[in-house]
Amino acid sequence: MRDPFPRVDGLLRAGSTTLEELADRYGSPLYVYDADHVRGRLEEIESAFAGVDLLVAYSVKANGSLGLLNRIGATGAGADIVSAGELHRALAAGIPGGRIVFAGVGKTTAEMEDALRAGIYAFNVESEPELWRLAGVAEGLGIPAPVALRVNPDILSPTPHEYTRTGHAASKFGIPIERAPALYAQMAGNPHLDVRGIDVHIGSQIVDPDPYRAALTEVLRVVDQLAEQGIPLEFVDLGGGYGVAYGADERRLALDELAAAVVPALRERNLRLILEPGRFVVGQAGVLVTRVLYLKESGGKTFVITDGGMTELLRPSHYGGYHRIDPVRDRPDAEVRTVDVVGPICESGDFLAQDRALPLPEPGDLLAVRTSGAYGFTMALNYNGRLRPPEVMVEGDQVHLIRHRENLDDLVRGEVIPGTS
Amino acid sequence: MRDPFPRVDGLLRAGSTTLEELADRYGSPLYVYDADHVRGRLEEIESAFAGVDLLVAYSVKANGSLGLLNRIGATGAGADIVSAGELHRALAAGIPGGRIVFAGVGKTTAEMEDALRAGIYAFNVESEPELWRLAGVAEGLGIPAPVALRVNPDILSPTPHEYTRTGHAASKFGIPIERAPALYAQMAGNPHLDVRGIDVHIGSQIVDPDPYRAALTEVLRVVDQLAEQGIPLEFVDLGGGYGVAYGADERRLALDELAAAVVPALRERNLRLILEPGRFVVGQAGVLVTRVLYLKESGGKTFVITDGGMTELLRPSHYGGYHRIDPVRDRPDAEVRTVDVVGPICESGDFLAQDRALPLPEPGDLLAVRTSGAYGFTMALNYNGRLRPPEVMVEGDQVHLIRHRENLDDLVRGEVIPGTS
Repeated sequence: MRDPFPRVDGLLRAGSTTLEELADRYGSPLYVYDADHVRGRLEEIESAFAGVDLLVAYSVKANGSLGLLNRIGATGAGADIVSAGELHRALAAGIPGGRIVFAGVGKTTAEMEDALRAGIYAFNVESEPELWRLAGVAEGLGIPAPVALRVNPDILSPTPHEYTRTGHAASKFGIPIERAPALYAQMAGNPHLDVRGIDVHIGSQIVDPDPYRAALTEVLRVVDQLAEQGIPLEFVDLGGGYGVAYGADERRLALDELAAAVVPALRERNLRLILEPGRFVVGQAGVLVTRVLYLKESGGKTFVITDGGMTELLRPSHYGGYHRIDPVRDRPDAEVRTVDVVGPICESGDFLAQDRALPLPEPGDLLAVRTSGAYGFTMALNYNGRLRPPEVMVEGDQVHLIRHRENLDDLVRGEVIPGTS
Repeated sequence: MRDPFPRVDGLLRAGSTTLEELADRYGSPLYVYDADHVRGRLEEIESAFAGVDLLVAYSVKANGSLGLLNRIGATGAGADIVSAGELHRALAAGIPGGRIVFAGVGKTTAEMEDALRAGIYAFNVESEPELWRLAGVAEGLGIPAPVALRVNPDILSPTPHEYTRTGHAASKFGIPIERAPALYAQMAGNPHLDVRGIDVHIGSQIVDPDPYRAALTEVLRVVDQLAEQGIPLEFVDLGGGYGVAYGADERRLALDELAAAVVPALRERNLRLILEPGRFVVGQAGVLVTRVLYLKESGGKTFVITDGGMTELLRPSHYGGYHRIDPVRDRPDAEVRTVDVVGPICESGDFLAQDRALPLPEPGDLLAVRTSGAYGFTMALNYNGRLRPPEVMVEGDQVHLIRHRENLDDLVRGEVIPGTS
């Protein structure tokens, strides 16, 4: 797909404007998303999997901003949620309950009630205790709970950080696949559970279709066994985790290779396919725009100090995540120097890039931190008394402010200074 | 000092009530602070350093909750701030500008203006470009800027995580100490700068007074040299970073040992001492109370799934930080088992403790995550659509809700769904 933020006449563009104009208008740091790019990614998925009954349940945790979520829902996509807060987001963005699936290992009774009342399509259940609690909540409300088990085939997927690996056996997520047949038999006999499907997640940032194929094979073995036992399933949820390229030399998952493995097997069984892409849909559609405040030499190193840092984009500090950084306005004559790009937060761990070769910027220059559409704003925090940045969505020739920058009142909202008595 | 959350009749207490009563009243997860313990810590500092003119500039980034900050300010303490947001907090909590020092490598022009107008006591300047920008801003406002340089003596302090080490040479923080004499001479000649002091920070979680002594020696050498040049300083700011014990076998910094090294040298020179404790003041005065939702066996491991996780307390996941975890209600007959205590967030990195021996709790039990008063709520985030928890402060026989739990409206505040045109 085309770069949503291409360089034209030396300046990075966004929709019909430039990142420089947006930073001048809305201030920095600032998130910018391209809604058309997001739609393009969703069409790419729809097209690759055209041969099967497909529900794309967009993973809200990647980027839950209502403006963007609304556009995602308008394409017919649903939502993969993990909390009552994300349920609220999905519904507020106009996504109907019937297109929502609810995952997560710590669903509370109140969250189960909210989701049952919203008529969600399925609970992806992560443990046996959760399953029986859900049956009890469903009984109490008189609304049968549509369920799938999240099963763990014992596949070690090649994933870049130990925190993003989820498909191995000793994990807080999911249920060992060996337990599935017996559990489904119990579920089928419970009048408060409506057995709908089966769910599997193998990790994050996966670029090779092989682990998905291996997981599918194991899952279909269970599906076939259940069909023989008279427990037909309606869907297979293959989760998300499709790798996107952060750096120029990185690979992304080839959707058509995945589809070639998945579509015939599901058609043959008349099964619906659920996919839960998040980063794949929004990752490259977003940039964090930040302004250089100071250049600093210290101990033989050059530090580029910017007005955005770990409070806006936690991934570099938290996961060692790599983000390409481009000058918003080209500096063809600048010396290329190896620098650390660091934020204003009082932590040594506050950086956007370390030992990165960059055309040396000057104070006042804008930098675009690429592939920040996923796990960017959604992990922003108010640490160091920072105000969370605004979010802008470009769409055709329109520019929409979809979230205002926080102000000082927001920072202390809900706080009380009690009188001394 | 006494444990602010002692166990009495099998139940952890807080002030005149119990953590169980507070969780029942305000829900979980929940932060609880003991204001009396905080005051005790401040008194401990005042008493150890009684022989010198002392300003305790409490480090707001450790815990900026207005209720707690108000009590800290009421003892006569000031504030160490790192942003306009923290300036707002300090002033809103009743701390006068004259007791505020402003650190941080990325101060913006707007932040400098806010702080000058508030009449802060000193800017701790972290780079030469910042110094000259500050002089320009001061000139523009017609308010001379009170300044100290943050200098880096080349001391490698023993600090537990690379992210908390700040005193080494190749750091975004501070100015090489060799540069200080020449810079102070320039500063003294600038009518828009009011030379006030000198500042040094050597790291975080330091339990040995030796690195402080070494840093002080280097700083005093500069102070004496400046005095000879006719540039008298008013204060030495020794920063913070005083280690507290998270585990039973950990040491904390012995304040009296530090004071014995510092007080005579400063008295002799008639210098004011600024200390910037944060964690030392509030760390052990806070607990995160969280409820067990589910127990789960997977791959030979036991997972205790709680309703609080990395969104409430980021330290375990982000820094590998250790927090002791105690059952709120004692279970003397429970099997002690090695478990992972994990939250409900959809990340493998969402844990509060790994491979921890605990009396096996049951669903519904409350756990107290200890020493969570510092870098707890202040790093909370809304990731996974989570609502940030409430904060309660106990004080004598009073219980004060100092921050309400966020609600679904808070979650999407400031967001806009643009119409399609």
